[in-house]
Amino acid sequence: MLDRARERTAEIGAQNDLAELMNDLGRRARAASAVLATTPTNRKNAALAAMADGLRSDIPALLAANAADVQEMRAGNAAAQLIERGTLSPTRIDAMAKSLEEIAALPDPVGVVIAAWERPNGLKIERVRTPLGVIGVIYESRPNVTVDAAGLTLKAGNAAILRGGSDTIQTNRALYGVIRTALGAAGLPEDAALLVPMTDRAAVGHMLRGLQGTLDVIVPRGGRGLVERVQAEARVPVFAHLEGLCHIYIDQAADLAMAVSLVVNAKMRRTSICGAAETLLVHRAVAASHLPSIATALTAAGCALRGDAAARAFVADAQLATEADWRTEYLDAILSIRVVDDLDAAIAHIEAYGSHHTDAIVTDDADAAEAFLNRVDSAIVMHNASTQFADGGEFGMGAEIGIATGRMHARGPVGLEQLTSFKYCVRGAGQTRP
Amino acid sequence: MLDRARERTAEIGAQNDLAELMNDLGRRARAASAVLATTPTNRKNAALAAMADGLRSDIPALLAANAADVQEMRAGNAAAQLIERGTLSPTRIDAMAKSLEEIAALPDPVGVVIAAWERPNGLKIERVRTPLGVIGVIYESRPNVTVDAAGLTLKAGNAAILRGGSDTIQTNRALYGVIRTALGAAGLPEDAALLVPMTDRAAVGHMLRGLQGTLDVIVPRGGRGLVERVQAEARVPVFAHLEGLCHIYIDQAADLAMAVSLVVNAKMRRTSICGAAETLLVHRAVAASHLPSIATALTAAGCALRGDAAARAFVADAQLATEADWRTEYLDAILSIRVVDDLDAAIAHIEAYGSHHTDAIVTDDADAAEAFLNRVDSAIVMHNASTQFADGGEFGMGAEIGIATGRMHARGPVGLEQLTSFKYCVRGAGQTRP
Repeated sequence: MLDRARERTAEIGAQNDLAELMNDLGRRARAASAVLATTPTNRKNAALAAMADGLRSDIPALLAANAADVQEMRAGNAAAQLIERGTLSPTRIDAMAKSLEEIAALPDPVGVVIAAWERPNGLKIERVRTPLGVIGVIYESRPNVTVDAAGLTLKAGNAAILRGGSDTIQTNRALYGVIRTALGAAGLPEDAALLVPMTDRAAVGHMLRGLQGTLDVIVPRGGRGLVERVQAEARVPVFAHLEGLCHIYIDQAADLAMAVSLVVNAKMRRTSICGAAETLLVHRAVAASHLPSIATALTAAGCALRGDAAARAFVADAQLATEADWRTEYLDAILSIRVVDDLDAAIAHIEAYGSHHTDAIVTDDADAAEAFLNRVDSAIVMHNASTQFADGGEFGMGAEIGIATGRMHARGPVGLEQLTSFKYCVRGAGQTRP
Repeated sequence: MLDRARERTAEIGAQNDLAELMNDLGRRARAASAVLATTPTNRKNAALAAMADGLRSDIPALLAANAADVQEMRAGNAAAQLIERGTLSPTRIDAMAKSLEEIAALPDPVGVVIAAWERPNGLKIERVRTPLGVIGVIYESRPNVTVDAAGLTLKAGNAAILRGGSDTIQTNRALYGVIRTALGAAGLPEDAALLVPMTDRAAVGHMLRGLQGTLDVIVPRGGRGLVERVQAEARVPVFAHLEGLCHIYIDQAADLAMAVSLVVNAKMRRTSICGAAETLLVHRAVAASHLPSIATALTAAGCALRGDAAARAFVADAQLATEADWRTEYLDAILSIRVVDDLDAAIAHIEAYGSHHTDAIVTDDADAAEAFLNRVDSAIVMHNASTQFADGGEFGMGAEIGIATGRMHARGPVGLEQLTSFKYCVRGAGQTRP
């Protein structure tokens, strides 16, 4: 009994230590964010450039740290995909450095006057962009997130608390060393980015509870399991999407060649990204004329097809789709196909089964297109374009930290602008309120 | 034992009933919000007009329902202030109707194109305002919130779930009857606004947990206790401010007459509103020249003064301010006064003790003003203007449902625009992603 009591005491002690350590990270990040909020653009850019230089000059050390991680993953029989994601190369490190330089080249969102107006009493009111504060990023095996997240949050004037996966902890520590050195060299607070040093799962729990009010928002980057846990448990706002169950709907007024080209691109360009289409909806009136060509092109591209009874009448080798198929984000070369009676039925299917990420209509009927864009309640709605364009870079918004399907604050690509808040600046000449 | 087991079973049954009833409200609100999202402006305005008409023609019934509430409050020895807030009059009912007509006159935020650009590949991208979805409003004894909240959420295309205080439940039910009838008469879903019919405290708990994902945001309207509970327990985003601990800082370059006029207005115009100043900071260089006149004017207006030692050297009858004073939102005719060494010390005091609501500087020095506006991290920062202007109507933003001090989504006055989200509409001509 005594031993168990001692063990329990030690355990509570360790928990308190972890809580204290995590809360201390929060306080340090908050203090750094106050400095960053008024740091001029050129100094933030200088830090980003120093980070890029540091990465390039530290390639041997970074690869050595990464080799240790990879060796441990191999020894632990990690999945090949996991090892592939976690492995650095000189090319990948250079890509991280380039990404930082691209972020430096983006316009600074902080201080931008979003709106300005004058009141009849002469008060001049401006709504001005400000940083959000402290951004928590929880991610898994891709170490480039350490660099991208630190760069994006810094450019928007925020401090970052980074919590990478345990598989790549040595790599992340090495990358973080470069970041911290660069911050100091550029005269910025070194705590502008903080890496959670331990791999404790409980550390994530502390972040989800907000580190005593010091974390303003959490961005999870990783698989469904991670995003689900974060969305279920977080007591602070989260920018995320659980899945990209994207639809492409072929309307009765769709051009056949365009329909074939868009469906193949939306599904097959890259099947693993969140903007890849997972379900094809086809208007009954063009099922006979359009579906066979679409199916032939998809099959030729290596896509397996599943369809409802009406679709299978035109796609002989399609497996019968089940209810589960309409709810599945395959992230693979598989597409489910459903024939629908009309635009209303297509929208009803998307609202019932979709994930409010990205959905597209193919049609030459302007009214149908506008009805679709207006009524489909997704972060991104498209007319005659591939769902694979769902990406901050493709939108011209620059690098993104993720895509959000929530309706609050950020929706769609989460880039620099979405990592800011705003405040009202009111300038008067002594006005009092009557 | 058996009796206690039976009681417990009945209790669990009642809890399940309440959960089911609340979740049903959520589902109904969500279904209504899908219709509201594409309801044209003129139909929303027609419903608002019908509500206003209904209120005016139902005055006798509304007063009767209210009389029953007031009688019960009196019988229960409720505080006079509570009874005053909960009592209707023909004038107050007419004011509610006028407020609805003002909301109808405001521009519809839904469908407004916030930004539009074209990509080199010809894709046209628009960011378009959409409703947020379902807004939960939790309020206390002022029954006008039932009407104002229903009107504002409707105009922004949202459904509302309203949970008023138990003191005025009969009044709220009567007001809600008018709202529901008007919604139906205007051809809108009657569930566009839903009143939680029971006074169970547990009903609030269900709302704070989000009604199975159907609630998008919660707005608490009431005293500190209510806002504190909502902020601590809510699992959905909250638009609120816990307190308005607003500061007015008299810089060394402040005009004396303007300083006197602004301080008296910021403190004394109405002491009970969140934008009322609670602490006066004075630059040491002008303490001797400015503080006596300011203090005389405040005292003449009926304000009690508390000051630090340096302030009391110039304000003989000020009580000594304690640490607690700097942290207190008096909402009363009391002002704490501190002499500070310079602008930096003023900003440091505001960041340490303020509530990030509204803070003002009085100065003729443009550089000091810009430094203050830039560095003070509050929703509203003002130069040479009274903090009492912190109000959506005074900002020209129309009616507001509250003022938020959070940094996510809405900050400052929460009006129609802040009750919306947005989506991206992408229009192409068959573009595929390379």
